[in-house]
Amino acid sequence: MTTEGTRVDAEKLREFTAEALQKLGVPEEDARITAQILVDNDLRGVESHGVGHLAGMYAKRIRSGVINLNPNIQIYSEAPSTATIDGDQGLGFVVGHRAMTEAIERAKKTGAGFVAVRNNTHCGAAGSYAMMALEHDMIGFAVVATASAGVVPPGSTKAAFGTNPLAVAAPAGRTHPFLLDMATSVIAAGKLEVYGRLGKPIPAGWLVNGEGRPVTDLTKRVRGEGGLAALGGTAELGGYKGFGLGVLVDILGGVLSGGSASITRKVTPGPAGGNANDNLFGALRIDTFLPLDKYKESMDAMVEAIEALPTVPEVDKLYVAGGIEAKLIEDRKANGIPIHAKVADGLKELAGELGIEYNL
Amino acid sequence: MTTEGTRVDAEKLREFTAEALQKLGVPEEDARITAQILVDNDLRGVESHGVGHLAGMYAKRIRSGVINLNPNIQIYSEAPSTATIDGDQGLGFVVGHRAMTEAIERAKKTGAGFVAVRNNTHCGAAGSYAMMALEHDMIGFAVVATASAGVVPPGSTKAAFGTNPLAVAAPAGRTHPFLLDMATSVIAAGKLEVYGRLGKPIPAGWLVNGEGRPVTDLTKRVRGEGGLAALGGTAELGGYKGFGLGVLVDILGGVLSGGSASITRKVTPGPAGGNANDNLFGALRIDTFLPLDKYKESMDAMVEAIEALPTVPEVDKLYVAGGIEAKLIEDRKANGIPIHAKVADGLKELAGELGIEYNL
Repeated sequence: MTTEGTRVDAEKLREFTAEALQKLGVPEEDARITAQILVDNDLRGVESHGVGHLAGMYAKRIRSGVINLNPNIQIYSEAPSTATIDGDQGLGFVVGHRAMTEAIERAKKTGAGFVAVRNNTHCGAAGSYAMMALEHDMIGFAVVATASAGVVPPGSTKAAFGTNPLAVAAPAGRTHPFLLDMATSVIAAGKLEVYGRLGKPIPAGWLVNGEGRPVTDLTKRVRGEGGLAALGGTAELGGYKGFGLGVLVDILGGVLSGGSASITRKVTPGPAGGNANDNLFGALRIDTFLPLDKYKESMDAMVEAIEALPTVPEVDKLYVAGGIEAKLIEDRKANGIPIHAKVADGLKELAGELGIEYNL
Repeated sequence: MTTEGTRVDAEKLREFTAEALQKLGVPEEDARITAQILVDNDLRGVESHGVGHLAGMYAKRIRSGVINLNPNIQIYSEAPSTATIDGDQGLGFVVGHRAMTEAIERAKKTGAGFVAVRNNTHCGAAGSYAMMALEHDMIGFAVVATASAGVVPPGSTKAAFGTNPLAVAAPAGRTHPFLLDMATSVIAAGKLEVYGRLGKPIPAGWLVNGEGRPVTDLTKRVRGEGGLAALGGTAELGGYKGFGLGVLVDILGGVLSGGSASITRKVTPGPAGGNANDNLFGALRIDTFLPLDKYKESMDAMVEAIEALPTVPEVDKLYVAGGIEAKLIEDRKANGIPIHAKVADGLKELAGELGIEYNL
């Protein structure tokens, strides 16, 4: 997902983003949290959930009123290790950050903390929240039950669940942290756009039509019919596993929070439509299972053994999940974040509208 | 995985299995637990982890001494919601049952319970333990870090992790429980045997050779080279997601318990070789998140909406994970479990050796 573009200093980008959000009416601390998450996503190469969406998506939604900038975020809890939070349609990053902080607090006290969230809005990448556990030497979990169903299970012709991402982050010692941050569909929807722009045929197994058959020619796709395939693709290649994982995210995020699964969600027409998210965030405190140094030694040994495996000629090096992200973070912290010209134009325009300086 | 064969009464099969295990030296209560789990696996169609392995695998391992029939199962715990258990090479079903019981007890008190297990032996299907949560109105989790690495990540030529199954079970109301019980490899190793016996080519994406290239002709497979593909198959179809999920199971089962990831495990030659398992078991108490009736209503609505979706002509009906299992359980409880002639022969032989009656 690496974008070519002008390199921009991460700290400056964070400051600009926070300033823009404040001008849009987001309270100072909430703007700081949101800017941090968006820029961190860009730092590790997740441009699809970075500042590229600030102007076109989040600013638009804030202005249209579908995001509540002063939400009454309430915690319902009946147990030391668990809780449910009502996000009151607050900014998704703020609600997500608050909920994961609650999960971490509970894990500090009891070893495990799991917090479900309903009435959240679009909170970006699941990985952002799972990674919050790392600095506390915990394993972090996050799932996002997305707004509407767009993924077709093997054997069906209609969508049953959303792209429903799940993420797990686990710290390591001298090696990089583990970070799995994946949609439970075979690919993210954004990949189709890239192939569409290039006019390239897509691999069989990504998309099915209204008859449940593979689509490889995007010009023959009928919008509103069929959808993305579940991870695994066909039944023969384990598509029922991706089907199960997608429904699992709906259960943990949508059902357990008192929100909704993708298929039963009433999607409001208009800008609020794709905005709804329900979540489960979790944390396990490692040193309640084993001494931290022993854990880190074992993680390092595993990661190093896997990353030393031989590769096929066209692959330089094998990375355990999180390895490529760690390299991107290192590079982008030192040399800046590449910002695509289109994204820069959107930010400049936003700056003009809000009367703030674009000095990146 | 449905086997044709003589139908055998589940209760009688359970009694026979428990008697055989006791004759092999397993204490009465442990024999009862093990028989229950094995026969329950057969009831829901998981013959690969049912009584079919009693004679050839478990009896053999017990007799060879690689399973400790009187283990000193110790619980190390520093927190109300978490614990680590040392299985002391006990019978895997007994250790797993004990650990999941501990997780459920913790979830009763705090809302969440997670128990890691090291030094376990082969404990069968991960789903057996996740399902223990259902009768307590909890969501159950189980992962099994398997003995040795046999799954090749996309881009590599050598195995990096085991088939490493994960399972999640969630109760429902009037519909069937959700049960996802899946290897993180694209298929289970047993499927290759079936295709091999039939002399059929296997689909590209199941197996790779020592050069990391797809194998479709099983006669050209070189044992010890390459291995199964991760869920997703190729990188293009999301194989790096299966790679991430497989490593995740190694972290949660092998590393967090103080045991070992598949790739760093020292596998002993001989019968103990494939016997080692490490685990994480977990439970979330639903009524600490939302009222149970609201949860069940929401689960039912989701399951019913998905299972009412239209299907392709060659598929009669769509099932959410656990739906086919629920139908099999209903049929097999009423009409008996089909036991393949080969399995029956093995059990008869075992009965003869142990001096017990085979009256199934």
